[in-house]
Amino acid sequence: MLVDLSIGMSIAARPQYLETPVSDSVNRQFILTRRPAGLPTPEDVVRRETPIPEPGEGEIVIRNLYMSLDPAIRGWMSDEPSYLPPIPLGSPVWATTIGRVVASNSPDFSVGDIALGLNGWEDYSVSSAEAATRLEDTMGLPLTNFLSILGATGMTSYFGMVDVGKPRAGETLLVSGAAGAVGSVSGQIGKILGCRVVGIAGGEDKCRWVVDECGFDDVIDYKACDDLTAAIAEKCPDGVDIYWENVGGEMLDAVLMNLAERARIVFCGWISTYNDVEKRPGPKNMWQILAKSARMEGFLVSSYVAQFPEGIAAMGQWLMEGKIHFNEQVVDDLDNALDAFHMLFDGRNTGKLIVNIGDFDD
Amino acid sequence: MLVDLSIGMSIAARPQYLETPVSDSVNRQFILTRRPAGLPTPEDVVRRETPIPEPGEGEIVIRNLYMSLDPAIRGWMSDEPSYLPPIPLGSPVWATTIGRVVASNSPDFSVGDIALGLNGWEDYSVSSAEAATRLEDTMGLPLTNFLSILGATGMTSYFGMVDVGKPRAGETLLVSGAAGAVGSVSGQIGKILGCRVVGIAGGEDKCRWVVDECGFDDVIDYKACDDLTAAIAEKCPDGVDIYWENVGGEMLDAVLMNLAERARIVFCGWISTYNDVEKRPGPKNMWQILAKSARMEGFLVSSYVAQFPEGIAAMGQWLMEGKIHFNEQVVDDLDNALDAFHMLFDGRNTGKLIVNIGDFDD
Repeated sequence: MLVDLSIGMSIAARPQYLETPVSDSVNRQFILTRRPAGLPTPEDVVRRETPIPEPGEGEIVIRNLYMSLDPAIRGWMSDEPSYLPPIPLGSPVWATTIGRVVASNSPDFSVGDIALGLNGWEDYSVSSAEAATRLEDTMGLPLTNFLSILGATGMTSYFGMVDVGKPRAGETLLVSGAAGAVGSVSGQIGKILGCRVVGIAGGEDKCRWVVDECGFDDVIDYKACDDLTAAIAEKCPDGVDIYWENVGGEMLDAVLMNLAERARIVFCGWISTYNDVEKRPGPKNMWQILAKSARMEGFLVSSYVAQFPEGIAAMGQWLMEGKIHFNEQVVDDLDNALDAFHMLFDGRNTGKLIVNIGDFDD
Repeated sequence: MLVDLSIGMSIAARPQYLETPVSDSVNRQFILTRRPAGLPTPEDVVRRETPIPEPGEGEIVIRNLYMSLDPAIRGWMSDEPSYLPPIPLGSPVWATTIGRVVASNSPDFSVGDIALGLNGWEDYSVSSAEAATRLEDTMGLPLTNFLSILGATGMTSYFGMVDVGKPRAGETLLVSGAAGAVGSVSGQIGKILGCRVVGIAGGEDKCRWVVDECGFDDVIDYKACDDLTAAIAEKCPDGVDIYWENVGGEMLDAVLMNLAERARIVFCGWISTYNDVEKRPGPKNMWQILAKSARMEGFLVSSYVAQFPEGIAAMGQWLMEGKIHFNEQVVDDLDNALDAFHMLFDGRNTGKLIVNIGDFDD
């Protein structure tokens, strides 16, 4: 897939990582060695060093520069049936990475090309050329943007809101995980499309950021809240027309009690459950989906890959107009990947979490 | 609302109930005196006798002839938040009835008119004229048909399938409660619209009826089945594209594990939960809604009242063409109403359950 970002952005200086020589002689990898119970430990995800791989027929080798850490990766580590087969034991943990092609056995890629794809927690990934996306023009934007606002994360917000939530002006949108990489952008898209937007986030700093920087109309600090059902009722007095579901568990139950007629629940994720050791029962208040003629709908950003150019163009336009604010939290060095991954679940993360694999300065 | 059934049906002899003199001097009523825990008992729903009521301004008095018993009534007896306020304690239990107007203080109704509406478990109901529907022409059909296939029950199947399920030819439709008044018709509509239709019912007799009379392609006897998840996988090898949800509980969990991509769950009811004393947790496998980009959508037949003429015309056409089979189970005498209501939950009911209030012979 070619990504065309003809949105007239000014071209900044060529970033330094494009000049950085690749001199490493080993390939650090984080291998899934057993299914985690709860948060993955260094015994579940083991660091090892292997030789730099060679490409097979039709394959390329990518020197990974940045990788995206997402809550969904925790699900891929489990063997519960889901939308992807589980990460095989003995394989590197998966992540979307962006990097430079250092060897190619494909006419579609040349050494030096920037390649994006679902690869591993590793310095070097071997990928089939078909599975990789070449980035024609980075327009001087930081490469990290293509893992965040212009990558799968931003596209999750865009297509989940536009195609699944289908907001109408004047509706009330409630966003859980509102300080997260997806939730913060989903809420801002809701604002652009005319909704009154209320977020749910944990802690004063996150709540302030959601309102002051992202422009949400209101926010609920679930950590400072005894009765979330009542808090939602107070902040959404006409009921919730669209709920952006990132969290699950008791939060979903509280929202269900506040649905407006014909509400839509955009089922994006259930971060509260990903580290459960036993599968927990579903929400108690699901009857409200019938009572309110509501709809709960799941979606996968991977279904929209062919439409990414449309989403990237829209998002790029909104960025240029200053309508979308986003935050990237970049952790240096692949060696810190596992601790960084924990940040997604323990409240230390705000915005899109990215690992700078080789500790490049750009 | 006027119901026009211009579908060319032959006019049968005028049924006898229209001639039956109303000579009763008391009004038998079944009063909800407390919220039931589990199945309602004669202590929860108490029979009493009151004088025949008089109509107030703009009101009519209906001599009820038949009433519809539906699982949803059990929900209305509880005070859990739902789509209707709970039946007030001290009031007759609600039901849709059809009867004859015996007194009118409204220009819209004359004595002798046939009136349909949400009334009570009672011989005589007072209704505002606005809340009642006058049946212009019964076309010689049994009045009971207007509580079953041409009434809210049939319209539930029609609009739930056509507007919510939106079947496409070749899809697999799985129907729970397949021998019930709604499920049996929903499955047949799916057949008409080109689906492969599999039912779930309890017991050999019901299963035979679903296949032999209603023309389902296959059926699962959940009572004779150790592993419902595996049974569904066997009968629906390409997955379930549409699930007609009447039951809830473990059955829903088994279906969730068998969803096809972009499946639709038409959330019509949860009969397995209506007599629960404590609210039970929701399904464990709801994650599959995300994993399969599926959709669960609730609906209420009351939302479609303005479109009933369209639904009745379509259903009437299919009836004439012999494409829809249905069954009415008529229990004589209002005095048997509570026992009859239990039949909905203990497996004794097949087809639409109706009480012949006054034991009329038509």
